Amino acid sequence: INSKLPNVGTTIFATMSKMAKDYNALNLSQGFPDFPVSPELIEGVYHYMKAGFNQYPPMTGMPQLRERIAEKIEKSYGTKVNVETEITLTAGAIEAINATITSLVNKGDEVIIMDPAYDAYEPIITLNGGITIPVSLKQPNFAIDWETVKEKVNAKTRMIIINSPHNPTGAMIEANDLAILAEITRDTNIIVLSDEVYEHIVFDGRAHESVLKHEELRQRSVATFSFGKTFHATGWRIGYMVAPDWISAEVRKVHQYMAFTVHTPSQLAIADYLENADHYNNLGAFYQQKRDLFLDLIKDSRFESLPSHGTYFQLLSYKNISEKPDLEMAEWLTKEKGIASIPISVFYDTKEDNKMLRFCFAKSEETLTKAAEILCAI
Amino acid sequence: INSKLPNVGTTIFATMSKMAKDYNALNLSQGFPDFPVSPELIEGVYHYMKAGFNQYPPMTGMPQLRERIAEKIEKSYGTKVNVETEITLTAGAIEAINATITSLVNKGDEVIIMDPAYDAYEPIITLNGGITIPVSLKQPNFAIDWETVKEKVNAKTRMIIINSPHNPTGAMIEANDLAILAEITRDTNIIVLSDEVYEHIVFDGRAHESVLKHEELRQRSVATFSFGKTFHATGWRIGYMVAPDWISAEVRKVHQYMAFTVHTPSQLAIADYLENADHYNNLGAFYQQKRDLFLDLIKDSRFESLPSHGTYFQLLSYKNISEKPDLEMAEWLTKEKGIASIPISVFYDTKEDNKMLRFCFAKSEETLTKAAEILCAI
Ligand SMILES: CSCCC(=O)C(=O)O
Ligand SMILES: CSCCC(=O)C(=O)O
Repeated sequence: INSKLPNVGTTIFATMSKMAKDYNALNLSQGFPDFPVSPELIEGVYHYMKAGFNQYPPMTGMPQLRERIAEKIEKSYGTKVNVETEITLTAGAIEAINATITSLVNKGDEVIIMDPAYDAYEPIITLNGGITIPVSLKQPNFAIDWETVKEKVNAKTRMIIINSPHNPTGAMIEANDLAILAEITRDTNIIVLSDEVYEHIVFDGRAHESVLKHEELRQRSVATFSFGKTFHATGWRIGYMVAPDWISAEVRKVHQYMAFTVHTPSQLAIADYLENADHYNNLGAFYQQKRDLFLDLIKDSRFESLPSHGTYFQLLSYKNISEKPDLEMAEWLTKEKGIASIPISVFYDTKEDNKMLRFCFAKSEETLTKAAEILCAI
Repeated sequence: INSKLPNVGTTIFATMSKMAKDYNALNLSQGFPDFPVSPELIEGVYHYMKAGFNQYPPMTGMPQLRERIAEKIEKSYGTKVNVETEITLTAGAIEAINATITSLVNKGDEVIIMDPAYDAYEPIITLNGGITIPVSLKQPNFAIDWETVKEKVNAKTRMIIINSPHNPTGAMIEANDLAILAEITRDTNIIVLSDEVYEHIVFDGRAHESVLKHEELRQRSVATFSFGKTFHATGWRIGYMVAPDWISAEVRKVHQYMAFTVHTPSQLAIADYLENADHYNNLGAFYQQKRDLFLDLIKDSRFESLPSHGTYFQLLSYKNISEKPDLEMAEWLTKEKGIASIPISVFYDTKEDNKMLRFCFAKSEETLTKAAEILCAI
């Protein structure tokens, strides 16, 4: 078989979760919570299933949910979006990202991504014949290196992908980053794909800088979001994208043949749940408490923590502990010590090894306590 | 914007369902039931949500469900498939079809499809740079024209797509068709994509001829299935694909970045529900009764029915009634007469108009009675 993705194996998240399961290790690798979904949301899904809402919703998503999303966007970012033409429900944010790249990137087009980057962008670009142009985030803060981005932009540049809060580093962009990006892309054919799945998981009083806040930039941007991340239900597979009508129209052409639409009763339950803005506005404080607990519990360990400003991930450096490459270290920790994490070399274009691991702290106090005990003993 | 799908609009199913809604018409267009999902299945989803199964399942699907699917395949087709390497849960059958074509079809590859064909194949082939080679089904029975297929096969042929029971015609292939297909594809690089979403909806004592029954053929085939169709829950978005390990491995590389996986609690509820084989074995009789009722109710109308051997669709010819092109006729029936159907020209490569409409009879007796009253008055 002539593979279109010869260098792609199973995604690291599936690999590490499987290893965690096989070795009965605490799973702080793949990003998902180990505490319950709100009973209100579960009762909602049950209610709508029983009420008979089990057939195809519209291809763009249930109108009620799109209405609520538009209200949420206005409350969160002060922007009015069109419910009919600018919002599309997708099979998780991943399908939004895939449909966006697939509909817009042609053979030979260049796509600039920030390195390290979420592992899905590159293979999707490759599948579409695009060329991935990685630009290294600056050390030590993982800020975007706009000078290099500017140098890389040329007539073939079709898309720039940003991701804030950033997976795997927990770094965040600032308002000024959007201003620079608007300037770089002004009067070009470049479309911005802004992966904002951790929009509400931000700490220490920081504000999430959504492209939706920047009226000029949003007119050439696709922003992707995730109810799985926001409502602790990563297995429900419901995300959405927001883009101006001329971009949405193209992405929907692909979406309708990719997933067509998503779980009807969950869409309706989420629409009701969104009426209370506390359900997402309190998320930052909720996870900040978890981050702080985790950092406090491991403060006497030999791991060194890097700043996490958003997401539910914490990078830890083990350069004082071991010379092992991070893939080996992650495997060893899982198999021998009973704790799974994500080696971050996989997120780098060159697979460079910085002796860092990513731990997910979207876990109960009990899990975090057990995890810290293991880490402190290493 | 330089569209990758310049000729694609919104899929006809979304268009007609929206028109039905806007004009308050009976909706016999898009294929979905208007009666309830089994309470057992709904209670199952509720149970698993409350039990905490709301996070990412494995990328290939929940192991329990893959086990039950393997048992179902063995009972239905006498074939043992590998639970780990050959079964993958997908976001509806559409995602299975998309991931299969996307992972296997390269630029310039030819893909043979039977004309008329389900509307999704062609745009997905186009997105991957493939060339669609339509082969007309033979009149009057919509049988596959194997002589022409043989003539079209050449070194560039990468895939042949078959679909039985066939949407939109309700035709079915026979065991001999699979024997010929096995012969045509023997010692070639051709992969067969067999869309079998209506596998259990077959009438008049006919047997569904799955590629999974044919041991040689199945070694180079991907078969796609749909729990939405089988369990009356088209809005739950759960399908699956079965393929030998070397094909599954490639398709999964794409699937993991397309939908990643599907609704966890529904997967577990479906696994339990599959334990009782009556839940799918009785489906043919259930829908045959609906087909017969519908045909009986419209026997005095001026529409002419074509044979429907499987699927939940009935083709009706209106050539004795009107000269209108079918798109116009479908629109007129929806807006003026209050009944929505699917014009079948959209399924033809040349958009040829045979003055035929497709009606979905997956409807309650009450809906079918009302529909027949309208049709009889035309
Ligand atoms: C699709 S599994 C990946 C989950 C995730 O976003 C992460 O762990 O980074
Ligand atoms: C994805 S909507 C299409 C439903 C269907 O399979 C049909 O109506 O033919």
